[in-house]
Amino acid sequence: MESLRIIDIVGTAAFSIAGAFAAMEKKLDVFGIFIIAFVTALGGGTLRDTLIGEVPVKWMLDLSSGMIVLLSTIAALLFTRVIKNYHNVLLLFDSIGLGFFTVVGIQAGIALGLHPIVCITLGTITACFGGVIRDISLNNIPLIFEKDIYATTCIFGGVIFFILKKIGLPIMPVEVICLVTIVLFRLLAVRYHWQLPTIWKPDNQ
Amino acid sequence: MESLRIIDIVGTAAFSIAGAFAAMEKKLDVFGIFIIAFVTALGGGTLRDTLIGEVPVKWMLDLSSGMIVLLSTIAALLFTRVIKNYHNVLLLFDSIGLGFFTVVGIQAGIALGLHPIVCITLGTITACFGGVIRDISLNNIPLIFEKDIYATTCIFGGVIFFILKKIGLPIMPVEVICLVTIVLFRLLAVRYHWQLPTIWKPDNQ
Amino acid sequence: MESLRIIDIVGTAAFSIAGAFAAMEKKLDVFGIFIIAFVTALGGGTLRDTLIGEVPVKWMLDLSSGMIVLLSTIAALLFTRVIKNYHNVLLLFDSIGLGFFTVVGIQAGIALGLHPIVCITLGTITACFGGVIRDISLNNIPLIFEKDIYATTCIFGGVIFFILKKIGLPIMPVEVICLVTIVLFRLLAVRYHWQLPTIWKPDNQ
Repeated sequence: MESLRIIDIVGTAAFSIAGAFAAMEKKLDVFGIFIIAFVTALGGGTLRDTLIGEVPVKWMLDLSSGMIVLLSTIAALLFTRVIKNYHNVLLLFDSIGLGFFTVVGIQAGIALGLHPIVCITLGTITACFGGVIRDISLNNIPLIFEKDIYATTCIFGGVIFFILKKIGLPIMPVEVICLVTIVLFRLLAVRYHWQLPTIWKPDNQ
Repeated sequence: MESLRIIDIVGTAAFSIAGAFAAMEKKLDVFGIFIIAFVTALGGGTLRDTLIGEVPVKWMLDLSSGMIVLLSTIAALLFTRVIKNYHNVLLLFDSIGLGFFTVVGIQAGIALGLHPIVCITLGTITACFGGVIRDISLNNIPLIFEKDIYATTCIFGGVIFFILKKIGLPIMPVEVICLVTIVLFRLLAVRYHWQLPTIWKPDNQ
Repeated sequence: MESLRIIDIVGTAAFSIAGAFAAMEKKLDVFGIFIIAFVTALGGGTLRDTLIGEVPVKWMLDLSSGMIVLLSTIAALLFTRVIKNYHNVLLLFDSIGLGFFTVVGIQAGIALGLHPIVCITLGTITACFGGVIRDISLNNIPLIFEKDIYATTCIFGGVIFFILKKIGLPIMPVEVICLVTIVLFRLLAVRYHWQLPTIWKPDNQ
């Protein structure tokens, strides 16, 4: 369980930073930046907990998540002057958050004894939904529906998680392999423009 | 209760197909099409169950809903090449889903002993919210706020439901008359451009 | 507790009117106007109750909130012909709702024994979220992310609430001072274009 706590903290920090940079790209004021960091980092887990009935949701009972968001946002604000390319920073931290939160969401499903398919869905919701609210709030088209494989990455990682678990690997290496796979897969997908097959003929578009 | 189960299945399939066609209109990849079908079909019921405290929500405990979405999406993908006019297909299945899910939502309210007005609201939420998330996700203006009578249709059907129930009709004909009314009313409303009164003078618009 | 009930009623009425005017600005039909008034007035409290597990949410068990929305919407529709400037009316009632609902949300958190920071967050969610759904539904950029200090006002009022409570003031004056502060602060912030510091150089924008 201790490894899961660390994974949760890293995911929260990464998504906070991704959210802060997305908000800075839109030139929001400092408070707007913090709100966007907060919903990006805690939105996915909040939706998951609400859907499975874990209420009041965790960040209300334990202030540490909010504190991590605050510190990460401050870090993002401090480093903004030395960073040239917001978009790449956003992509990196978004990918890290994606990998770490998928694992957190899968474990929440396992703790409830839910079917692996539902666990993977919960992992995907945990990882993707914060970014969806962030993008809708900032009037961007949600990343999840853009061409680059996004939610697919979480599902792919989730399948690997359950295959490794089935094989009998201890839980910590399963978690690490799953999250590393997702982060790398996401970065490579964006770098090399991987796409899922569409049913449209190219000349059609 | 058995009739309600069938109504739920037909509604789920119809909204999945409507969602899949809306996603195809926007040329999403196959996975995006499935996600949109899923949120269209299960979004309304998920919001309803969350608001009334039926958590973990049903599709997490029973995989059959997800399976219906999957099969319906595959059917939609297979038939896409023979279909000329996406918009009409979308409208037809959207109308069917609207009628069937209004009944499902009303029954969920009745099961909790809620007031008829709240039951009708729950029916309307169940029927309309999936389409609202679909439209917001695809950056369309939600159908519910367009000119064609949409949520009104569900409320109209709900009022008929409770009038027939009050009269003492058995539940199955009440359900069938309610859902047929909604489907027909919706199709006729679009066909003949029915509108609710607005408070704006025509020359004003 | 009685004072809280009155505060809740005034806030519901104010947000219904603000929602109705925002919908009229977009020339929605009468039913769309009522739906927007409803989500504006009850959306924030619904999200709050869902997150803290107070389900079925209050407006399902007690029809009085819905009734207040209905009457307020009718009032807004009747007065629309004598009102020249929708935007100012919307701003006034939006500010009143903001102040009153912040207090309602804070008290909901206190009743659960949550930390003051979380109570203030709940107050802010209660006050701001209805307007966020309203703005997203109407395809407006949510007010909360525009330049004028919005959520900040709720937080500022919330901090004052807990300072006065700490000092030992009885709860009713604490509530009244908090809500009056928020309403005035909001109106002054818009009137004098108060802004939070941004990290962008002016020549940059």
